[in-house]
Amino acid sequence: MGVNSNRVEHLGCNNGSSIKVQAEIQMPPLQIHKVRLPPERTTLQKLRHRLSEIFFPDDPLHRFKNQTCLMKILLALQYLFPIFQWAPLYNLSLLRSDIISGLTIASLAIPQGISYAKLANLPPILGLYSSFVPPLIYSLLGSSRHIGVGPVSIASLVMGSMLSETVSYSQDPILYLKLAFTATFFAGLFQSSLGILRLGFVIDFLSKATLVGFMAGAAIIVSLQQLKGLLGIVHFTNKMQITPVLISVFKQRDEWSWQNLVLGFGFLVFLLTTRHISLKKPKLFWVSAAAPLTSVILSTILVFIMRNKAHKIAIIGELPKGLNPPSSNMLCFSGPYLALAIKTGLVTGILSLTEGIAVGRTFAALKNYQVDGNKEMMAIGSFSRSAVNFNAGAQTAVSNIIMASAVLVTLLFLMPLFYYTPNVVLAAIIITAVVGLIDYQAAYKLWKVDKLDFLACLCSFFGVLFISVPLGLGIAVAISVFKILLHVSRPNTLVLGNIPGTPIFHNLNHYREALRVPSFIILAVESPIYFANSTYLQERILRWIREEEERVKANNESTLKCIILDMTAVTAIDTSGIDTLCELRKVLDKRSLQLVLANPVGNVMEKLHQSNILESFGLKGVYLSVGEAVADISSSWKAQP
Amino acid sequence: MGVNSNRVEHLGCNNGSSIKVQAEIQMPPLQIHKVRLPPERTTLQKLRHRLSEIFFPDDPLHRFKNQTCLMKILLALQYLFPIFQWAPLYNLSLLRSDIISGLTIASLAIPQGISYAKLANLPPILGLYSSFVPPLIYSLLGSSRHIGVGPVSIASLVMGSMLSETVSYSQDPILYLKLAFTATFFAGLFQSSLGILRLGFVIDFLSKATLVGFMAGAAIIVSLQQLKGLLGIVHFTNKMQITPVLISVFKQRDEWSWQNLVLGFGFLVFLLTTRHISLKKPKLFWVSAAAPLTSVILSTILVFIMRNKAHKIAIIGELPKGLNPPSSNMLCFSGPYLALAIKTGLVTGILSLTEGIAVGRTFAALKNYQVDGNKEMMAIGSFSRSAVNFNAGAQTAVSNIIMASAVLVTLLFLMPLFYYTPNVVLAAIIITAVVGLIDYQAAYKLWKVDKLDFLACLCSFFGVLFISVPLGLGIAVAISVFKILLHVSRPNTLVLGNIPGTPIFHNLNHYREALRVPSFIILAVESPIYFANSTYLQERILRWIREEEERVKANNESTLKCIILDMTAVTAIDTSGIDTLCELRKVLDKRSLQLVLANPVGNVMEKLHQSNILESFGLKGVYLSVGEAVADISSSWKAQP
Repeated sequence: MGVNSNRVEHLGCNNGSSIKVQAEIQMPPLQIHKVRLPPERTTLQKLRHRLSEIFFPDDPLHRFKNQTCLMKILLALQYLFPIFQWAPLYNLSLLRSDIISGLTIASLAIPQGISYAKLANLPPILGLYSSFVPPLIYSLLGSSRHIGVGPVSIASLVMGSMLSETVSYSQDPILYLKLAFTATFFAGLFQSSLGILRLGFVIDFLSKATLVGFMAGAAIIVSLQQLKGLLGIVHFTNKMQITPVLISVFKQRDEWSWQNLVLGFGFLVFLLTTRHISLKKPKLFWVSAAAPLTSVILSTILVFIMRNKAHKIAIIGELPKGLNPPSSNMLCFSGPYLALAIKTGLVTGILSLTEGIAVGRTFAALKNYQVDGNKEMMAIGSFSRSAVNFNAGAQTAVSNIIMASAVLVTLLFLMPLFYYTPNVVLAAIIITAVVGLIDYQAAYKLWKVDKLDFLACLCSFFGVLFISVPLGLGIAVAISVFKILLHVSRPNTLVLGNIPGTPIFHNLNHYREALRVPSFIILAVESPIYFANSTYLQERILRWIREEEERVKANNESTLKCIILDMTAVTAIDTSGIDTLCELRKVLDKRSLQLVLANPVGNVMEKLHQSNILESFGLKGVYLSVGEAVADISSSWKAQP
Repeated sequence: MGVNSNRVEHLGCNNGSSIKVQAEIQMPPLQIHKVRLPPERTTLQKLRHRLSEIFFPDDPLHRFKNQTCLMKILLALQYLFPIFQWAPLYNLSLLRSDIISGLTIASLAIPQGISYAKLANLPPILGLYSSFVPPLIYSLLGSSRHIGVGPVSIASLVMGSMLSETVSYSQDPILYLKLAFTATFFAGLFQSSLGILRLGFVIDFLSKATLVGFMAGAAIIVSLQQLKGLLGIVHFTNKMQITPVLISVFKQRDEWSWQNLVLGFGFLVFLLTTRHISLKKPKLFWVSAAAPLTSVILSTILVFIMRNKAHKIAIIGELPKGLNPPSSNMLCFSGPYLALAIKTGLVTGILSLTEGIAVGRTFAALKNYQVDGNKEMMAIGSFSRSAVNFNAGAQTAVSNIIMASAVLVTLLFLMPLFYYTPNVVLAAIIITAVVGLIDYQAAYKLWKVDKLDFLACLCSFFGVLFISVPLGLGIAVAISVFKILLHVSRPNTLVLGNIPGTPIFHNLNHYREALRVPSFIILAVESPIYFANSTYLQERILRWIREEEERVKANNESTLKCIILDMTAVTAIDTSGIDTLCELRKVLDKRSLQLVLANPVGNVMEKLHQSNILESFGLKGVYLSVGEAVADISSSWKAQP
């Protein structure tokens, strides 16, 4: 084929007329391209392709192609344990920045670990354990270089709330601990099985809008719970909803103590100020990173000095030092509470996973490397900690090892120092940590861009506040899924017109310069044609035709003769959809209107062929583009008027 | 603009080379079209438009536009009561065909009414009531001219099975009757509230595939249940699943009676033969329509003659004649069984609705008028009856009135004649009616066209057979919805190439003649970009780019410089999708690759604009078509090499 002989001449036009209809079609001889079936594949090939797209979208084995056997083993080791990737290149300058960031994060991790344990109603020492063991595992397995690993605030809160609604820690601490361990075990099991089965996409169904609302609601609940510590209330509700918490706060007004209040709000203001400074100037990240430890040290000294005067200030008290024996005997897989433990584990697992992946992705985008969602499921990071780690210049996962060592030293030798640490400071630390989760700017953006997303956000926010954490999450997911289903069951249909001087056909409402083509109506269906929308689409298309016929009659234009369905956005079709097309064709045939398909995609062509519809449409029923359809059909009308 | 100055010259090409890459781009001066934002609309306008698309896709008020006030009232009356439409035009010849079809259908309705009542374990007289009252209502309200209204076999079966699993009719007939009435009341309430709230789309989620499997499973279960009657078994299970029914059949072998067997299978063969004849020659429709009544009459006479010899043949026995007092006192809205009644009502309501709408649509398509799904919900038709009605030449809803009168006469005067009618004939009538629901040809077509649809069909089939009717239905709906979600969360992405001599870009794998454009990779995303697929799409797009770069390097082609995303099929985007585009752009920017969007649809443009992304893409970042993008970008490279 030569270059010039193939030029396609396009519709001439005259947009001077006021009715916005092309007056005359000038059509030189035109080459019409045949619409083809996609190359044949067996069912097995299609299934394999589909499954690999579902489970291995990132093609994890691509690095192994065209490599020697030894190289393959090395690459496999590097893939499974990223430590082999960076260890050979490790040097002193990397070590220096890792030590600094490791120690910085330890100073954040120790007070946070104790505080988060309190959130889940667990002994503070367990919080430190969880800042010590997981980072070591993550430094072996994880794929992000900046994630600081440790307990996640939301997950801790949810676990605490779900368990204490049934079992009270103060009444039966052993049972409570057992349940907490079992729930954690199931959370881990759930996460790693998701990872191993490569079901990362399950997590995708928690939309960002849902999470914004959920996090904000949870942050408010956590903060309100801290009023117990801030006000020094002794008798406090087990419930998590906003109403019982507020009632509890105001009913126990006689238990409020001004010493707690002053100390708590003092440190809260201090912590929030340092946080604000670090947010404004990222270079001063260490200000907010060091603030919690500073507060703990200052308040402990303060309480120690006034220990004879301020009895009303609750303190942590005796903390055992050293390492506990492994806790596998704390797991219980039987009894009436197993269902509760599994449910709690599932919810906390999903939550910490979501937060972890979101965190990893954020930092990966900043530094331009990729995080493997399916691998992340084995080890989880917490947000505030990762931010500090990133800002402190962590280069490799060694910073996690340094951090773990610092925590270990604390566990072994420094625990008695926390005897006089007041609970009120821990409450202030928790509030500061969760306040950052209230992302009102994101909520405002949701409102501006997508009202339905904003609704999902609001629902999960109020669901968490007033009903319960898992139910709030459930409602939000349901709204997100409903939005998808609504979009699928009521898809857009558009009337297209030709943009003068181009082969482009576009929405008439959107492009004012687009012109109707006389005797044609060109409809674009903006969705796959499924059982869920096939009846709707049939009705809608018939309505478009009815309205066009009325318009044509009112304006005395040439009568409608042909309906072109632009199938570009119809990316799939099922048997109900095929039946609808068939039926539509029959109905239009009876009214002597021609139905033509333009640009059906590969798998739609295939399905039409398999159900023998393509044959009934015939040669002149399917075109490669709207332009070719218009040109060919109108020239055939001229040939036989 | 003149006609000739607007011609667009297209990419020349040279497909002689073996690497299938366009060798040289010949680009005359080209007019680039600005991509516009859609005309602005307020949130309220958008909401109103969206809601009217969801609830009023058929624009039910279009007839009222531009009419006088009096005309409007008349039209409203005609809309609410179609009887006003056809009554003024009614004449004697219409009446003749209506009388014929009314009587024909009555001869089918009387034995069917009695049989279906037995399916739901109700006294046969109630079946006749339901063939008498609803048709009168439908002739006032319904929109289809051919629907024969009456109890639906599947709905009767499901109600009978769901109720008798908890309450046995033989042990507590009053409670059973009360529950049946209450369930029917809720079914009606559910249907009419769906209709009034215009939620017809809820029904759309039962896909055709699901229904094919469900109907076949239900038909088999109904038929197996009739073995009780055919074999003359007295002690029979209450359960509906296939296993307990078969066990029950073979355990009670001593109760089998050969008289029943001979009589039953004789009439079954007769009925199936007449059915076959009518299917082969639609003109002989009356053969199968008259067969049930003929069988009833023949068998009654036969049993009457042999009444002293054949004691083992179970007969209907005493039937009260005349009309019962209204049954509102049979409704019970309290007590432990209310939940069961509501559940049963919901399921039967959905089922009879689905069957009714499917029936109405089928006949409407044949005769080319439209059925209003939302209005259908107030009155329901049964399939076999409508087919007879259609074939018998029913012209208006008067045929329903004639039919109802015939049933009324039967109720008032002819009930004692059914005293000797053997149950076994009723069983044969039921089997003949439900056998038609097993549509193996449709199942084979599903297998050929869409394997996942076939799977949904199989699941609902086996779910109904082995688990239970509502659960089987639930599984099938879940599979259908899962299919939609899977399509949304793992959408196709395609690499496009230019079809030489045209402005058309198409899938490289599908069109072998399509050529890659050097230095470009053109990706089409075949789905809205949602939270559910945004992370997947980002990974998949980066993988396409990686693979393209590897290919380019291996073949020594010109390096990749620009990625064009064809957004034609991206019919919607949410906030997560926008974030993904942003992030993708940042990642590619770091690798000095240009990201360009082609042909974004109206609402995507709007969202991009609202979130200030459009500005960051700039003038050279969004094009109206892939062709213009390629042309403009490559000419800009030539200008500044």
